[in-house]
Amino acid sequence: MKVALFPGSFDPFHNGHLEVVERAGKLFDQVVVAALRNPQKAEPLFSLAEREEMLKEALAHLENVRIVSVATLVVNVAQEVGASVIVKGLRAVSDFENELQMAQMNRQLAGVETVFIPTSSDSSFIASRLLREVARLGGDVSAFVPKAVLERLDQRFPR
Amino acid sequence: MKVALFPGSFDPFHNGHLEVVERAGKLFDQVVVAALRNPQKAEPLFSLAEREEMLKEALAHLENVRIVSVATLVVNVAQEVGASVIVKGLRAVSDFENELQMAQMNRQLAGVETVFIPTSSDSSFIASRLLREVARLGGDVSAFVPKAVLERLDQRFPR
Amino acid sequence: MKVALFPGSFDPFHNGHLEVVERAGKLFDQVVVAALRNPQKAEPLFSLAEREEMLKEALAHLENVRIVSVATLVVNVAQEVGASVIVKGLRAVSDFENELQMAQMNRQLAGVETVFIPTSSDSSFIASRLLREVARLGGDVSAFVPKAVLERLDQRFPR
Amino acid sequence: MKVALFPGSFDPFHNGHLEVVERAGKLFDQVVVAALRNPQKAEPLFSLAEREEMLKEALAHLENVRIVSVATLVVNVAQEVGASVIVKGLRAVSDFENELQMAQMNRQLAGVETVFIPTSSDSSFIASRLLREVARLGGDVSAFVPKAVLERLDQRFPR
Amino acid sequence: MKVALFPGSFDPFHNGHLEVVERAGKLFDQVVVAALRNPQKAEPLFSLAEREEMLKEALAHLENVRIVSVATLVVNVAQEVGASVIVKGLRAVSDFENELQMAQMNRQLAGVETVFIPTSSDSSFIASRLLREVARLGGDVSAFVPKAVLERLDQRFPR
Amino acid sequence: MKVALFPGSFDPFHNGHLEVVERAGKLFDQVVVAALRNPQKAEPLFSLAEREEMLKEALAHLENVRIVSVATLVVNVAQEVGASVIVKGLRAVSDFENELQMAQMNRQLAGVETVFIPTSSDSSFIASRLLREVARLGGDVSAFVPKAVLERLDQRFPR
Repeated sequence: MKVALFPGSFDPFHNGHLEVVERAGKLFDQVVVAALRNPQKAEPLFSLAEREEMLKEALAHLENVRIVSVATLVVNVAQEVGASVIVKGLRAVSDFENELQMAQMNRQLAGVETVFIPTSSDSSFIASRLLREVARLGGDVSAFVPKAVLERLDQRFPR
Repeated sequence: MKVALFPGSFDPFHNGHLEVVERAGKLFDQVVVAALRNPQKAEPLFSLAEREEMLKEALAHLENVRIVSVATLVVNVAQEVGASVIVKGLRAVSDFENELQMAQMNRQLAGVETVFIPTSSDSSFIASRLLREVARLGGDVSAFVPKAVLERLDQRFPR
Repeated sequence: MKVALFPGSFDPFHNGHLEVVERAGKLFDQVVVAALRNPQKAEPLFSLAEREEMLKEALAHLENVRIVSVATLVVNVAQEVGASVIVKGLRAVSDFENELQMAQMNRQLAGVETVFIPTSSDSSFIASRLLREVARLGGDVSAFVPKAVLERLDQRFPR
Repeated sequence: MKVALFPGSFDPFHNGHLEVVERAGKLFDQVVVAALRNPQKAEPLFSLAEREEMLKEALAHLENVRIVSVATLVVNVAQEVGASVIVKGLRAVSDFENELQMAQMNRQLAGVETVFIPTSSDSSFIASRLLREVARLGGDVSAFVPKAVLERLDQRFPR
Repeated sequence: MKVALFPGSFDPFHNGHLEVVERAGKLFDQVVVAALRNPQKAEPLFSLAEREEMLKEALAHLENVRIVSVATLVVNVAQEVGASVIVKGLRAVSDFENELQMAQMNRQLAGVETVFIPTSSDSSFIASRLLREVARLGGDVSAFVPKAVLERLDQRFPR
Repeated sequence: MKVALFPGSFDPFHNGHLEVVERAGKLFDQVVVAALRNPQKAEPLFSLAEREEMLKEALAHLENVRIVSVATLVVNVAQEVGASVIVKGLRAVSDFENELQMAQMNRQLAGVETVFIPTSSDSSFIASRLLREVARLGGDVSAFVPKAVLERLDQRFPR
C-alpha cells in the first residue's frame, strides 16, 4: 500500500489545498494530511487544534484521507505514518524553488521522496497569506475556501 | 473619464514609484495614489500620515494625481474613487508572481482589472526595503528618492 | 483619444489573446491589433494574410478594435497608427522577462510605453506553440481558440 | 494497478532521466517510458528507433518498466497504455513553467494528471541539449549518460 | 593585490558558504569574510560574536582568508578592508534577483563591483533558514555544516 | 597571473558585452574574449572571422584583453589560454538558469570555475537576438553597440 504525506501549515486550508488532496487520493492508496506547528513563524491565525478540526470537516468526504497535526520534522512524520512519498502542490515559480530545496533536504535527511502536483489554473492564485489579509479587511473569500473554513473566518473577522 | 488606482505601502515612496505615477498619468485621465496601512506587516518606518504627507509633496507637480491613505481592501478603494483599473509597477520576476496573484484575486473579488507598468532599467533595482536598510546604516540614498522623502529620512537617520 | 497597439504573431490567435484585446478595449479608446511578419522565425503555420483574416472574423464583435498586418518594427507601427501605448498579455515568468526586454528596447528606440495585462488564470496555459503541436497531432483544441481559428485548423489538420 | 507514463524526446536519454524512471518505478506499479517523435523540432540526433533501442538497453535492469515509441499526442498514449498519471522530471524554473503549461493542457484535453519528480541536485544540470553540444565537440560525457547511450554517442562523434 | 569581500549573516555558516570562500580564495589574493549584524531581521539564532567565532574555526585552514564582524553598510566594509570586489554565492533564481538588486545598489552607492560564484549542485539546497528549522526540530544537519557550527547547534538544540 | 576567459557567440558584440569585458579587465590580470562557432545554431548573422574582426576593433582600447575565435569546447579553450576562470555576464533570470547549467557542466568536465558579473541596469535589456531583429527591420541600434559593430550592421542592413 502506497501512503502519501501532504504536510502544510494550512492556516487556513483552502480550495487549492483541497484540490491537491483529492488528486493525491486518486494516485495513492492513502493520503495523510499533516498540519504543522511551525516553530519559526509569527503567531498563526488559527491554533493547531482549530486547523486540525477544520481539516477534518473539510476532508470528511474523502475515504482514504486521514488527518494528523504535528510539531516535528516532516521526515519524522513520514516515517511514523508509513508514507513513502511526500506530496506538495505547486502553483508558481517561487513556490517551486522553495519546495525544491525542502525536497532535496528531505531526501538527504531520510531518503524520503517528494512529488509535486500542479494545482489547476483556477486555484493557482489562492494563497493562505492572501486569504488571511483579505478576510481581515472584511473581503468575501467564500469562493476560495471550504465551508468549514469560511465559518471560522467569519467568526474571527465578522463582516 | 478613466481613473487608475496606484496602491502601495510607499514606506518610503521612491523614484521607481514616481516613474510609475508619471507614466500612469499619461495613460489615464486621473491617477489616485493610495498609501495602504498593511495590517500584517511589522512596524512601518513612517506612519500612514507621514507617508501621505510625503506623497503630497513629491507629487505636487502632477495635475491629474491625487493622494489618499486607506486601511481597507484595495478593491474597495478602487470602487470608492471610481477607478476602473489598478496600476502596479513591475521590476523583477519575484514582483511579478506576487502581483499576478493579487491581480487575479482582485479580479475575482470585485471585477477590477490590473495593468502592469515596467519601470525603466534605471529604477529597476530600487526597493523600499533596501532603501530603509541603507538609510538606517547611514548610506546616501539621495539618488533614489524625491526630496520630500530624503528630508524625512535624514531627520530619522541623521548621517 | 488613447490608442493602444497589441502586436503579436498570432499564429494562431487564441482565447488568451482574445481576452487581452477585450480588456484593452475597456481601458483605451481604440485598440489596434497588429499581426507581425516575423522575419527570423521558421515557416509560420498560417500566412500573414490568413492570420489577418482570422483576426478580423474573431474580433468582428468589438467596435473599437481594428486589425493591421505589418512587416516592420513595432515602434514604427505604433507611430503610424497613432498609438501612445503598446499592450501585451502576461501569462508566465518566462513571458515576462522577454517582454520586459522588448518594452525597454521600445522605450529607448521611440519613447513608446508598454503596459502588461495579466491573462486570467483560465487562459494562462494556452500558448500558440502548444496549440500548433496539439492540432498537428489531431488533438481537439476547440476549447482554446475562437471559431474562426478552429475552422482553419480543422482544414489544415483534418481529424 | 497504477500505471505512470514518462514521455520525452530522450535525444539522448541521460542519467537525470534514469533517476526519474527509477523513482517513478518505486512510486507506481508500472512505468511506461515513451520516446516521442516531435514533429516540430529540427532533425533529432538519434532516430526514434535508435532512441527506443537505447532506452531498452539502459532500462533493462528495471522490472516494472516498459518502453514504447510514439508519434501521437501524449494524452492518447496515456489512454492506450492505461496510464492514470504522467510523470515528468523537474530540474529548473524554466522547465517548470513549460511543463506546467503542458500539464494543464493535458488535464483539459483528457483529464490526465501530471506529477513532477524533482531530480537530485547531482543531476540538475544535465540536459540533452547540452550533452549533444558537448559530445559534438569531442567532450567526455561518460559521467552523465548510461553506457548504452555513451556507446552510440562515441560512434556518432568519435573522439 | 586583489582583495574580495564575502559578506553575509552566516546564521549559521554552512557548507555552501564554505565552498564559496574556498573558490573565492583561489580567484583572489585575499578574501575577507564579514559577518553582518542585520538591524532589520528578527532575533538571530547566534550572536554576532558567536558567528565570528564559528567562522574563525571553520576557516582556520585557509591562509588567505580573514574574518571581520560589522554593523555598517557592506560598501563601507569594502572600503575599510581595501576590497575591490564583493563576492556572493548563487544557488537559485530567487537568490539571484535579490542579489542583483543589492549589487546594483552597491555599484551606485560606492562603485564597488560584485561577482557571483555559483555553488556546486551538491550545496545548492542548503540554506541557513532551512538548517535552523531542521536543527530546532532535532534533525541531523551534520552533513551540511562545518564541525565548529555543528557543535554549537548541538549545544543549542540538544538532540 | 589570473587569466579569465569570456566566451560567447557575440553575433553581434554589444555594449552589455563590452561592460563585462571592462569589468573583468579590472578584476583579473588578463581577459581572453573567445568568439565561438556554435555548431548547432542556425546560420549566424556574421561569420566567425567578421565577429573576431569586430571584437578586435571594439576592444582595441583595452590593454589586458586579447581575442580568439574557436570551434571547440569552452573548457578546452580555457586550458589552451591558461584561464583559471570563465566569466559570464548576467542580465536576467532566464540567462541565469542556462548559465548555471553550463557552469556546473564545465566544472564537472574540467574543473574550471565560472563567475558571473551582473551587467549594469542600463545594459540589462540589450540582447544580440533583439539587436539582430531591430537592425534587420531598419531600427536604429546605435545606442546599443560599439562603432565597429554599428558600421557592419549598417552595411548589412542599409537604412
